[in-house]
Amino acid sequence: MAKRKASEIDASEPAFASPEGLEDYPARKAYRLLEPGPVVLVSTLDTVGENIKPNLMTMGFHMVIQHEDPPLIGAIIGPWDHSYAALKKNKECVVAIPTVELAEKVVDIGNCSGDESELDKFARFGLTPVKAGKVGAPLVKECMANLECVVEDTKLVSKYNMWVLKVVRGWINPDAKEGKTMHHWGDGTFTLDGEVINLQERMTKWKEYQD
Amino acid sequence: MAKRKASEIDASEPAFASPEGLEDYPARKAYRLLEPGPVVLVSTLDTVGENIKPNLMTMGFHMVIQHEDPPLIGAIIGPWDHSYAALKKNKECVVAIPTVELAEKVVDIGNCSGDESELDKFARFGLTPVKAGKVGAPLVKECMANLECVVEDTKLVSKYNMWVLKVVRGWINPDAKEGKTMHHWGDGTFTLDGEVINLQERMTKWKEYQD
Repeated sequence: MAKRKASEIDASEPAFASPEGLEDYPARKAYRLLEPGPVVLVSTLDTVGENIKPNLMTMGFHMVIQHEDPPLIGAIIGPWDHSYAALKKNKECVVAIPTVELAEKVVDIGNCSGDESELDKFARFGLTPVKAGKVGAPLVKECMANLECVVEDTKLVSKYNMWVLKVVRGWINPDAKEGKTMHHWGDGTFTLDGEVINLQERMTKWKEYQD
Repeated sequence: MAKRKASEIDASEPAFASPEGLEDYPARKAYRLLEPGPVVLVSTLDTVGENIKPNLMTMGFHMVIQHEDPPLIGAIIGPWDHSYAALKKNKECVVAIPTVELAEKVVDIGNCSGDESELDKFARFGLTPVKAGKVGAPLVKECMANLECVVEDTKLVSKYNMWVLKVVRGWINPDAKEGKTMHHWGDGTFTLDGEVINLQERMTKWKEYQD
């Protein structure tokens, strides 16, 4: 059973919640969520170990590579992350964007490892795994947004642990979308979103990205 | 003259200001400046066209790839950016981090092109080009920080316009270092840095990054 691809695994094992309460978000606007540089959670379905279970990690090293056709992002996930093996095997993950209400959980998720076969980080941290639409890894219901991703390119994985991911579907949580995202200074301190300024009238060249 | 590598060009042409007033910043801590996801300026020395001149662009698609040994960052700079040709030729640039005081200039720099041979964006926007230590491209004095970079890997340039850059030297501007950086939502609106929260006591695994 552990040998199957995550997307081939019957939805009933393990059982994830329905996406009720989450709204569709266009994958082609993934850049709106990631370009500002929030710290994110990465969800995978760990089918590598003895027990099939969802796993979570915290990630600060990511970027937008391409707006659309298709939307692409870059992410650093290395062998020191337990999620690396699941990503390598199943070639898919979910990138979820937490807000400050989840701050302690975000840090704690990044400071324990899913390599203990019994540890289910969703259960430990009281987060709800929701069945995704196109990938086997679950969404994180409590996050502001979730982006379902499949691996597009592994050319830089061996040298830099850099994965090129294609966003295939997005979800937004209307209850969390006004929340403040967290920007990691890399040392355990985070800046929260502050004031928003609008300089759209000066954006004369890039009108297609202002809808 | 335009055929020489930027680093081989005599410091007197074009004349840049001395780095007086800027302080050294360790390159190995570049991640502290970039992981939070600020919009940045990229400075190049344009030796491609008829006139040798510095150039500037605004960039929101970047990431940290590796903390140190050496510090590496990823950046998307494509042929639609005039800076692409200079980066391709000279294999070096400066990544500068502006604060909100420069907000209008940051957007305007991203909405005009250095392809007009007479246009010097430093002059047009009243920014001071400062002679860098290791690269031919100038620092931007008014920015909070400047990171001198050389191209480390071009493997993903042809497919995704993704450059792997090595940070070789850093500078901090003590007058600007308390400023708020800007996080681009990709549509001309920006979130400014807000409150800082400190969760270092929960960072049990990554103590080496807390000095």
